[in-house]
Amino acid sequence: MEEWLEHLINSITPLDEGILDMAQSRLDSLTKPRGSLGMLEELGKRFVVIRGDLGARVEKKVVFVFAADHGVIEEGVSAFPKEVTAQMVYNFLRGGAGINVIARHTGADVVVVDVGVDHFFRPTPGIFHAKVRMGTENMAKGPAMTREDALESIRMGVEVAFTYAAKDYNLFAAGDMGIGNTTPSSAVFSAITGKPPEEVTGRGTGIDEEALQRKIKVVRQALEVNRPDPSDSVDVLCKVGGLEIGGIAGLVLGGAALGIPVVVDGFISTAGALIAVSLCPRVRDYIVCAHRSAALGHEVALSWLGCRPLLNLDMRLGEGTGAAIGMWLMELGERILHDMATFEEAQVAEGEEAP
Amino acid sequence: MEEWLEHLINSITPLDEGILDMAQSRLDSLTKPRGSLGMLEELGKRFVVIRGDLGARVEKKVVFVFAADHGVIEEGVSAFPKEVTAQMVYNFLRGGAGINVIARHTGADVVVVDVGVDHFFRPTPGIFHAKVRMGTENMAKGPAMTREDALESIRMGVEVAFTYAAKDYNLFAAGDMGIGNTTPSSAVFSAITGKPPEEVTGRGTGIDEEALQRKIKVVRQALEVNRPDPSDSVDVLCKVGGLEIGGIAGLVLGGAALGIPVVVDGFISTAGALIAVSLCPRVRDYIVCAHRSAALGHEVALSWLGCRPLLNLDMRLGEGTGAAIGMWLMELGERILHDMATFEEAQVAEGEEAP
Repeated sequence: MEEWLEHLINSITPLDEGILDMAQSRLDSLTKPRGSLGMLEELGKRFVVIRGDLGARVEKKVVFVFAADHGVIEEGVSAFPKEVTAQMVYNFLRGGAGINVIARHTGADVVVVDVGVDHFFRPTPGIFHAKVRMGTENMAKGPAMTREDALESIRMGVEVAFTYAAKDYNLFAAGDMGIGNTTPSSAVFSAITGKPPEEVTGRGTGIDEEALQRKIKVVRQALEVNRPDPSDSVDVLCKVGGLEIGGIAGLVLGGAALGIPVVVDGFISTAGALIAVSLCPRVRDYIVCAHRSAALGHEVALSWLGCRPLLNLDMRLGEGTGAAIGMWLMELGERILHDMATFEEAQVAEGEEAP
Repeated sequence: MEEWLEHLINSITPLDEGILDMAQSRLDSLTKPRGSLGMLEELGKRFVVIRGDLGARVEKKVVFVFAADHGVIEEGVSAFPKEVTAQMVYNFLRGGAGINVIARHTGADVVVVDVGVDHFFRPTPGIFHAKVRMGTENMAKGPAMTREDALESIRMGVEVAFTYAAKDYNLFAAGDMGIGNTTPSSAVFSAITGKPPEEVTGRGTGIDEEALQRKIKVVRQALEVNRPDPSDSVDVLCKVGGLEIGGIAGLVLGGAALGIPVVVDGFISTAGALIAVSLCPRVRDYIVCAHRSAALGHEVALSWLGCRPLLNLDMRLGEGTGAAIGMWLMELGERILHDMATFEEAQVAEGEEAP
């Protein structure tokens, strides 16, 4: 493994159990039956323990939309033409997309990370230039990219994490944009979890039955042609992955190294999380899975991660839309932990709690 | 039935299908695959159709915490002493409770409706005085209250709806506070759905197995002693209900009459919704069930209502905590409907959609 990546992974430490216990005591002293705010309590605890500081507050939140193009699109796997990737990036920059509306409602900033769109964007606020290449090759015919490019996409995600940590953001969400990107995500799921393509391939943005069968065939073909090594997730990424998937894997690793929670969105972001967790299983404790996507196969990946998603709202848009809501819920958990009154402060009688 | 109640119920109209269709067309023109924002799209549609105005925006949101005491507490059904009801009302007024933290995070106001607490509160901002009586009688020994009192509690809920509609609130959430109130809620569920007490009685704020068995016995006894008539939900309410349950039923009816969506919280609020829907089945279209409470038996009531809850975060606090998050999600749905760019505006190519 590359030296920088090994260093990064070695800097990811186990969570501090002491802070976890203190956070639990604080939660149990608040004016509510113990545990009655359920997963919100878990999120509050998780935030402070990842930050390594019982008093940590959510300061600035940002959702990163990792954008890239995919050579596999020429196999007819998507309902939308490739140009839509760049067109949607402009939509993000103008504030008109789903993620923009959700980010405004949740108080998060949106940053588009161009890690591999087949288009050059002028420098504009709201875009982070991290282009590794102009999209991937067609994985149905050979590797999606070189090992060097795959590592570079991961390094770019790490770069994003460090850059925004320095701007005082302390809660990250991972999102994606890339026409065709559910196809490599399915291939990554299949390669890493060992499940066959038909169990992890869904309709993406909305293809019909015939196109779905074609897509499953393409995923199977990509796996057969490239034979990615499941024990080497960089190999999986370069052969059947995507540049935004690598970027998201890097963001997850960078967040964990910095003690910043990363809320993972749906299908594509989860593929990035799988790559990161394969590289460093300890990263599992630093991520939050925002929602169960309506896309078939997502469930398989969540189980492999051992992650219970927060929401199940039948969403399947990507862009970080589920993750932005997840960040807002984590912020709410932090507020509950710190801002509620204790029984003593409020002079409320404590009940006899069941064990 | 009382004349005022009949008038109110007759003023609740079916939803306007024309607005629903227009909202759907608008959603399908937005820059996202069709339906890909799942339940958020449904919430946006539901908001404008209930308001009867395609352009309606969520203006001011309020969560009403209906508070009351319960005579059945003397049977030892709760882990907390009765004084906690009034103590928690003071906690709400000072802003230290769970609902206060969640309301601040969601941009909602909190109003405590004293419909039957065994304590007099001085006039203070944040409290709506609607006291019908100083709590109920012990339903294990006879009716919880008279039919007149039950009707008065419903009327008070209607009064709350009309008062806050006049203050330009156009989205309501129903919450509750009342030590012992899961016991009458279970009795209401059993009486209306026909399910036996052991299937609809849970641990409330956290009682042990022995206390749970006692609670089930108390619910059974209350139903045997009082024999509420399931076809007359006012009879159910007066015999085995509670004042906050009646108030919430009134809020739901009032909201429907005014074209204001009411987001229903967990166990106790759902009991109020059951009473309202029994009185006027059309009300079903005007409510949103916020979450599946961790409390046993809630599922039974949600199925009876035919309502899919938005969230499943293991919450069981009450106070309107789940409903406040639900209101915020409905507001987000409204923002998506109105604020996202269309394919045409954003110059994004439309895909071939699957049917």
